[in-house]
Amino acid sequence: ASALRSKVFDFASKVRKIAADDPRKVVHCMKVGLALALVSVFYYTRPLYDGVGGAAMWAVMTVVVVFEFTVGGSLYKGLNRATATLSAGSVAFGIHWLAIKSGRTADHIILGASVFLLSSAATFSKFIPTIKARFDYGVTIFILTFNLVAVSSYRVEKLLALAQWRFCTITIGFCICLTVSVVICPVWAGEELHRLVMRNMEKLADSLEESVAEYLEEEGGVDCNQKLAHKSQGYKCVLNSKSSEDSLANLARWEPSHGCFSFQHPWRRYLEVGAAMRQCAYCIESLDSCINSENQQPPDSVKKHLAKVYAKVTTESSKVLKELASSFRSMRKPSSIDLLVEDMKNTADELQNALGSLPQEATSLIVETLPLITAASLLIEVSVRVEGVVHAVKEITA
Amino acid sequence: ASALRSKVFDFASKVRKIAADDPRKVVHCMKVGLALALVSVFYYTRPLYDGVGGAAMWAVMTVVVVFEFTVGGSLYKGLNRATATLSAGSVAFGIHWLAIKSGRTADHIILGASVFLLSSAATFSKFIPTIKARFDYGVTIFILTFNLVAVSSYRVEKLLALAQWRFCTITIGFCICLTVSVVICPVWAGEELHRLVMRNMEKLADSLEESVAEYLEEEGGVDCNQKLAHKSQGYKCVLNSKSSEDSLANLARWEPSHGCFSFQHPWRRYLEVGAAMRQCAYCIESLDSCINSENQQPPDSVKKHLAKVYAKVTTESSKVLKELASSFRSMRKPSSIDLLVEDMKNTADELQNALGSLPQEATSLIVETLPLITAASLLIEVSVRVEGVVHAVKEITA
Repeated sequence: ASALRSKVFDFASKVRKIAADDPRKVVHCMKVGLALALVSVFYYTRPLYDGVGGAAMWAVMTVVVVFEFTVGGSLYKGLNRATATLSAGSVAFGIHWLAIKSGRTADHIILGASVFLLSSAATFSKFIPTIKARFDYGVTIFILTFNLVAVSSYRVEKLLALAQWRFCTITIGFCICLTVSVVICPVWAGEELHRLVMRNMEKLADSLEESVAEYLEEEGGVDCNQKLAHKSQGYKCVLNSKSSEDSLANLARWEPSHGCFSFQHPWRRYLEVGAAMRQCAYCIESLDSCINSENQQPPDSVKKHLAKVYAKVTTESSKVLKELASSFRSMRKPSSIDLLVEDMKNTADELQNALGSLPQEATSLIVETLPLITAASLLIEVSVRVEGVVHAVKEITA
Repeated sequence: ASALRSKVFDFASKVRKIAADDPRKVVHCMKVGLALALVSVFYYTRPLYDGVGGAAMWAVMTVVVVFEFTVGGSLYKGLNRATATLSAGSVAFGIHWLAIKSGRTADHIILGASVFLLSSAATFSKFIPTIKARFDYGVTIFILTFNLVAVSSYRVEKLLALAQWRFCTITIGFCICLTVSVVICPVWAGEELHRLVMRNMEKLADSLEESVAEYLEEEGGVDCNQKLAHKSQGYKCVLNSKSSEDSLANLARWEPSHGCFSFQHPWRRYLEVGAAMRQCAYCIESLDSCINSENQQPPDSVKKHLAKVYAKVTTESSKVLKELASSFRSMRKPSSIDLLVEDMKNTADELQNALGSLPQEATSLIVETLPLITAASLLIEVSVRVEGVVHAVKEITA
C-alpha cells in the first residue's frame, strides 16, 4: 500500500513538474476543453441539425483531431482536412456519376477498381518527402473521404446533401478551433522555433564556457567539478533537437504573420542554423570527452603556457554565440558581430601560435600533453564552426 | 511547356527511385488498396448493416486510419483505438446515466462540465512522455469517443446499440487490416529496427575505413578523393537516425514474436546501442573534418612514422564493428569479438606509443603536424567508443 502511495505521489509530482515547467501546456488543455464545450453547446442549441442525424459528429471530430498545441499545427490540419474533404468529395462524385452511366454490372467494377487504385496511389504519395512534410494529414483524409463517399453513395443516393453538410460542419468545427486557438494565449510554431534555436545558441555558449572552465580550474576540487559537469551538458540538447526543429519549421510555414515574423518568413533557414549549431555541438562533444577522459596530467608548465590563450578562445567564441543569440532574440542585425568574429579568429590564431611554441617539456612528454593539444586543436575547429553559425544566422536577419 | 515536361519527368523519375529503392513501399500501397476494397465488398454484401445507417463508415475509417507501414504501427493504433473506444464509451455511458438521474437542469451542467474536465485532463496526459510514447493515439480516440457519445446520447437515447455497433465495426475493420498486414509481405517494426541498427554499424565501419584511407592515400589524386568522400559520409546517417530508432522501438513492443525475436525482446536496448553508435559518429565527424580541413601538410617523415599504425587502428576498429554487425545480423553471440577488441586496444596503445616517439621534425614543426596528431588522438577516442558499442550490443545478445 505504501509502495502504491509513493508511486502515486511520484506520478503527481511528475505531473506538477510538467505543468510548472510550461504553464502554456495547462492553458492548452483548458483551451481544448473549452472548444469541445463550445461545439457541444452549438449542437444543443441548433435543432436544425436533427435533419442530418449525426452531422454534428463531424464538428466534434474536427475539433478533437485538428486542435493542436501550436496555431500552425491547427492550421495545417484544418486546411488539409477541408481541402482534402472537398477534393475527395468531388472526385468520388465524378466516379459515382461515371459508374451510374455505365450500367448495372460495370458500376461494381468501376467503383471497386477506383477504390483500390486511388487509395494505393494516395498512400504511395505519402512516401514522397515533400508531400509527407506538407500534406500527410490531407492525404489520409482524402483516402478516408473518398472511400466513405464512394461506399455510401452506392446506397444513400443523396451524396450532394451529405457532402455539403459534412463540409459545413467541418468548417464550423475548424472555425471554433481556430478562434479558441488564436484568441486565448496563442502558441505560434514559428515563435517556438525561433526560441528553440535561440535557446540552443545560449546553451552552446554556456556549455563551451563551462566545460573549459571546469578543466582549467580543476584545482577547485571534485565537488565543484561535478556541479559544473551537470551544467555543461547543454550541448546535448542541441544534438537532439533536429526532429523538433524539423516539425516546427513544417508547421510554421502555415502561420500568418505574427509578432515580428511575416507570412513568408524564411523558416527553412532556421534548419540551416540548426544544422550549423549541431556541427558545433559535435565538436564540443569531442572536446568535452577529451577534457574528461584524460588520465594523463599534462606537465604544469605546458598547462600554464596554454591556459590563458585557451580560456581566451573559449570566452571569445561563447561571446560571439551570446551576442548572436541576443541579436537573434530581437531580430535585429547583429551589429557588433563582425568585430567579435574578428576577435575570435585572432585569438584562435594566437592559440595556434602558442601551440607552435610549446615549451621543451611538452615535446618530450607528448603522450601526457596529447589531450591538451587535441583539445586546443578541437577548440580551434569549434571557433571555425561558430563562424558557420554566424553565417547561417546572417542569412535570416539580412 | 518544355519546362513543365521536364518537371513532370523529374517527378516521375523521383517516384520511380522511391519505388525501386524499397519495393515494399509499393506492396504496402497495394495492401492498403486491397484492405479498403475488402471493406467495401463486406459492406456491399451484408445488407444487415442497413439497420444502423452509417455504421460501416467506422469500418472504413478504421482501415484508413489504422493501416500503417509496419505491423507494429497497425497493432499500436488498432489496440489503442479499440481500448479507447470501449473505455470512453463506458465512462460516457456512466456520466449520461448520472445526468439523467439528477434531473432536467442539472444534466446540462453535468454533461458540459464532464466534457470540459475529461477532455482537458486527457489532453494533459499527452504531455507525459510515457503516455505520449505508448498511448498518444488512444487518448485522442478516448476524447473523440467520449465527446461523440456524450453529445449524441443527449439526443439519440439509444446509446448502447450505437456503442455496440460502433465497436463491432471497428473490430471488423481492425481484423481486415491486421490480416492483410500480416499475411501479405509483413513489415515488422522490430525487424526494421534491427536492420537499421545493423546497417548503421556497417556504415560506421565503412566511413571510418574510407575517411582514413582517403587521407593516407591522398596521392591518388582529386578524382578518387572526391569519390571516396561521398562514400565516407555514412556516419551522417547514424547522426540523424535517432528519431527513426525511437519511433520503431515504440512500435516494436506491440508486436508478437516473429522471426528470431520474442514478444519481450529488449527493444529498448537497441536505443542504447544507437546512442553508443552516435557517440562514435560524433567523434568520426570531428575526425573527418580534422582530416579534410587542414591546410598544413605534415612533414613526410611524420606522416610515414604514423601512417602504418594509424591505418592499423582504423582497420581493427572497423573490423570490430563489422564482426559485431555480422553477429548481430544472425543474433548469435559474437564469439571472436573479445579477441578483436583486445587487438583494437593493443593497436590503439601502439598508436599512443608512436605518438610518444615522434621524430624530431614533428616537435619542431608542431603546427604543421597538429591535424595529424589531433586525428590520431581522436582515432584513439573512437576506438574507446567502439568498445562502448560492443558493450551495448552484448547486453542484447547476452
